[in-house]
Amino acid sequence: MNSTQRNIKLVIAYKGTNYKGWQKQKDVLAVQEVIEKTLEKFLLRPVKIRGASRTDAGVHADCQVANFKLEDSAVPTSAFKDVLNNLLPADIAIRESSEVPLLFHSSRDAICKTYHYRIYTGKEKDVVAYNDRWHVKYDLDLPAINAASEYLTGTHDYRGFTSAKDNRDDAVRTIYEANAWASGDDEITFKIRANRFLYLMVRNIVGTLVEVGRGRWPAEQVGRIIQSRDRMQAGKTAQPHGLCLKTIEYSKK
Amino acid sequence: MNSTQRNIKLVIAYKGTNYKGWQKQKDVLAVQEVIEKTLEKFLLRPVKIRGASRTDAGVHADCQVANFKLEDSAVPTSAFKDVLNNLLPADIAIRESSEVPLLFHSSRDAICKTYHYRIYTGKEKDVVAYNDRWHVKYDLDLPAINAASEYLTGTHDYRGFTSAKDNRDDAVRTIYEANAWASGDDEITFKIRANRFLYLMVRNIVGTLVEVGRGRWPAEQVGRIIQSRDRMQAGKTAQPHGLCLKTIEYSKK
Repeated sequence: MNSTQRNIKLVIAYKGTNYKGWQKQKDVLAVQEVIEKTLEKFLLRPVKIRGASRTDAGVHADCQVANFKLEDSAVPTSAFKDVLNNLLPADIAIRESSEVPLLFHSSRDAICKTYHYRIYTGKEKDVVAYNDRWHVKYDLDLPAINAASEYLTGTHDYRGFTSAKDNRDDAVRTIYEANAWASGDDEITFKIRANRFLYLMVRNIVGTLVEVGRGRWPAEQVGRIIQSRDRMQAGKTAQPHGLCLKTIEYSKK
Repeated sequence: MNSTQRNIKLVIAYKGTNYKGWQKQKDVLAVQEVIEKTLEKFLLRPVKIRGASRTDAGVHADCQVANFKLEDSAVPTSAFKDVLNNLLPADIAIRESSEVPLLFHSSRDAICKTYHYRIYTGKEKDVVAYNDRWHVKYDLDLPAINAASEYLTGTHDYRGFTSAKDNRDDAVRTIYEANAWASGDDEITFKIRANRFLYLMVRNIVGTLVEVGRGRWPAEQVGRIIQSRDRMQAGKTAQPHGLCLKTIEYSKK
């Protein structure tokens, strides 16, 4: 191998149920830490990986993207997928390992992310759905939800949909796509595609759309929340386990 | 209420992932114990429930049946479903609570049980399938599996398919139905319906059928295992988490 340093990109799927989110933290187990420890065991050196998205505790991912720098190693890039899959627990899978330019940065270079949020609307308790769908026991009006979703798209200050604790200056984001469909018997899936997301943004949007779907709020409420920039106007935060990071897009340059 | 004693039947679904099976044991958590403790908390008295099937650690149930005797309580029978569902963890659900004759015995009176076993045959690691499908990375020949399954039905001594540790005298059982079908992309479901099952019987049968499906053994091997009554002839025991207790039938008398 000519280059002594490689930048390796991993595409990662995980079931978030058993983890306190993506990002490494003290005293609790996060997905990042599990992958770093596994890489360290294999490479016999400390490794720091950088994830594109800090998913919260209980949130799943179909395609988290992370990258790490590796110097002077004889391990072929493509081998990381199989080796890691064998060493990692069953709820974390590497879907791809590939070499990318040294300047590639999984988080900074992402131009777009898509999240799905699934709701189980059956009346009965469901032991299969419990860790990947939020159980809402009410009938939801899907056309009303989609009418409300139209207020979401565009470039707006989405402060009204972030955490009340989040006081960052810049809350302007662009939502390219927001809609919902019946994805099964007693199941609704929400899709939101945006350039970047604020903390708790998807879950606060879904919590609000559920209020609309239940008929408690009109579709226009979504527009009012955006205009007000006031978190107190929005619905309650939807539970984490319905959320899944579906795709992360990068520019093709 | 006139009668001072009631016999209450519960139909129970659970995801077995977090439990060491159905039956209460020392030092580990079983589904039976969780339900008994929950009933005790609610009724303020010790309760002993009797399950129809001792599912193993990691095995799921769509409709385990259990019953318990209750004396001098004002709680309506139908209330147990909702009360327990609220108090039980998300991976255990009560599907029905009903009053049955005092002599009803969930296990002794069962005339037939059906198990499903799911296999994920995709080449890629799947973080969604990991706790309810066995991952077999080989292409499986479904017609060959169904040809082999035909040897299973009927009344036979199935000692060859039980645990090597199981030395009971009576291993004669009747299998009414045994077959398999493609239940999704990269997914095969096995169904076995029998009057009663031996310890590990379904999982040993599935392990054997997978060998047939991979082309390593001819369909006739299943007949030979039954005739030999020798556990060493059968395939390896399929993993527990693909197994699900689907239905338990009782006579309509």
